[in-house]
Amino acid sequence: MMELLLIGIGTGNPDHLTRAGEAAIHEADVLLIPLKGEEKRELADLRRLIVDRIRPDAPVRAFDLPVRDAERPYLDAVEAWHDAIAEAWRGAIPAGAERVALLVWGDPSLYDSTLRIAARLDPAPRLRVIPGITALQALTAAHAIPLNTVGGEVTITTGRRLRETGWPKGAETVAVMLDGATAFTTLDPEGLEIWWGAYLGMPQEILAHGPLAEMAREIPRLRSEARKDHGWIMDIYLLRRRAAVALSLHRATRLP
Amino acid sequence: MMELLLIGIGTGNPDHLTRAGEAAIHEADVLLIPLKGEEKRELADLRRLIVDRIRPDAPVRAFDLPVRDAERPYLDAVEAWHDAIAEAWRGAIPAGAERVALLVWGDPSLYDSTLRIAARLDPAPRLRVIPGITALQALTAAHAIPLNTVGGEVTITTGRRLRETGWPKGAETVAVMLDGATAFTTLDPEGLEIWWGAYLGMPQEILAHGPLAEMAREIPRLRSEARKDHGWIMDIYLLRRRAAVALSLHRATRLP
Ligand SMILES: C[S@@+](CC[C@H](N)C(=O)[O-])C[C@H]1O[C@@H](n2cnc3c(N)ncnc32)[C@H](O)[C@@H]1O
Ligand SMILES: C[S@@+](CC[C@H](N)C(=O)[O-])C[C@H]1O[C@@H](n2cnc3c(N)ncnc32)[C@H](O)[C@@H]1O
Repeated sequence: MMELLLIGIGTGNPDHLTRAGEAAIHEADVLLIPLKGEEKRELADLRRLIVDRIRPDAPVRAFDLPVRDAERPYLDAVEAWHDAIAEAWRGAIPAGAERVALLVWGDPSLYDSTLRIAARLDPAPRLRVIPGITALQALTAAHAIPLNTVGGEVTITTGRRLRETGWPKGAETVAVMLDGATAFTTLDPEGLEIWWGAYLGMPQEILAHGPLAEMAREIPRLRSEARKDHGWIMDIYLLRRRAAVALSLHRATRLP
Repeated sequence: MMELLLIGIGTGNPDHLTRAGEAAIHEADVLLIPLKGEEKRELADLRRLIVDRIRPDAPVRAFDLPVRDAERPYLDAVEAWHDAIAEAWRGAIPAGAERVALLVWGDPSLYDSTLRIAARLDPAPRLRVIPGITALQALTAAHAIPLNTVGGEVTITTGRRLRETGWPKGAETVAVMLDGATAFTTLDPEGLEIWWGAYLGMPQEILAHGPLAEMAREIPRLRSEARKDHGWIMDIYLLRRRAAVALSLHRATRLP
């Protein structure tokens, strides 16, 4: 039975890699590295950089990452895309490989399709998942803020979903990923605070924080400038009801 | 200005430590390690083990961790407790230390009070947060499951909250932490699936997965047995509406 190692590599900072991730890179018989379009070259390069640093002679097999059909309905297109990626893996895995590794951006559990693609392989491989630092952790770390208020709930969602359904009912903290179109600008900003970050963990990291009423103008400006400068952008943000912010971190009194 | 390094160390497996965490352990002028009661000795020992492995001659200062007053109302008791911990830090930090490190279980952003305690220091230190693998990531990795369904929302909450307010409205995936009293047994199990894990990342790791209707009897049994055997337990679980499980991973068709 083939073993598939899904190695979370963190989100831009090669030092996000864990000791377990390092060990798994050493163990693999082959490491599959997707070649993405020009735009994402910089991100694919991070995988190479990590592998070269940990194991310069690693047996790497690059494969062309199929593209998702933007014309088809979302879930349909995603299904077909995952089928195509599974096929690409099958083409890239050398016969007889027993331990095949994939380097996964962030953590393999969070808005990532690698596990879903792996479920398409037949015979089914044994899976070993090595967790990695997520973009959400990179965001809270960069701002030095807690994700949750004391004993409070957190909702993690996508830009698409936030735009379609608005502020999740009853939520006090909402983290938003996969937002290509600044969905936060569609919310009533009253009483909301935002912590935003782009290119987290990378040299070009940008952070912004403030009342949503102000930042709903400022962040789209920062975002489109950065996108123009770098040719691509990846960003994430956390929104919190201001009433809850007090519970999350700040206190009026400090120890003398 | 003093710099405070909050280093996420993961949740039981010393190999969860990242390269950034390792580097920060080397950089610190002093590492504060809390001494907890007997019961949590094993957990405090992990911090020692990590430090000893990375930097055997590290300048460690142990301090007695105050206990939270279980008699007072929850939020009040937490406030007073955090004040007391900030005082204990102040007592343990040697005069002139410029870079003080704290090893934080899991990730400093997730149900952890270290940032809130740091906010009580005066003068305010500069904060540097180094993200670490959370128990939630250890859970999804151990079960090799995604946290979210395709494009779906995830709610992270506590046992206390789940018990008080029931299934979060409209949620399809709910991750529950800090549950000392099996709050999942208070839900209507119909249509829910549970993935549970205790002592994740540790040698005594236990996993269970199945329909909540069955597991609501099985897990409490496993849990109290394990607790008796080891003297303590830490567990976490993920609940998903069965209708959403299909979207999360499994597919009827596999590639030939
Ligand atoms: C397909 S998801 C993958 C998430 C990844 N598995 C993780 O654990 O963070 C991509 C989304 O993650 C976020 N993201 C990933 N890396 C990021 C970074 N370095 N800076 C900001 N956001 C990032 C963005 O919201 C982006 O749309
Ligand atoms: C005070 S919170 C700290 C969480 C930590 N900061 C993190 O990032 O995972 C403690 C809760 O985390 C979960 N937890 C932490 N370590 C765990 C482990 N090794 N196995 C299972 N659950 C764990 C349990 O739900 C526990 O009640």
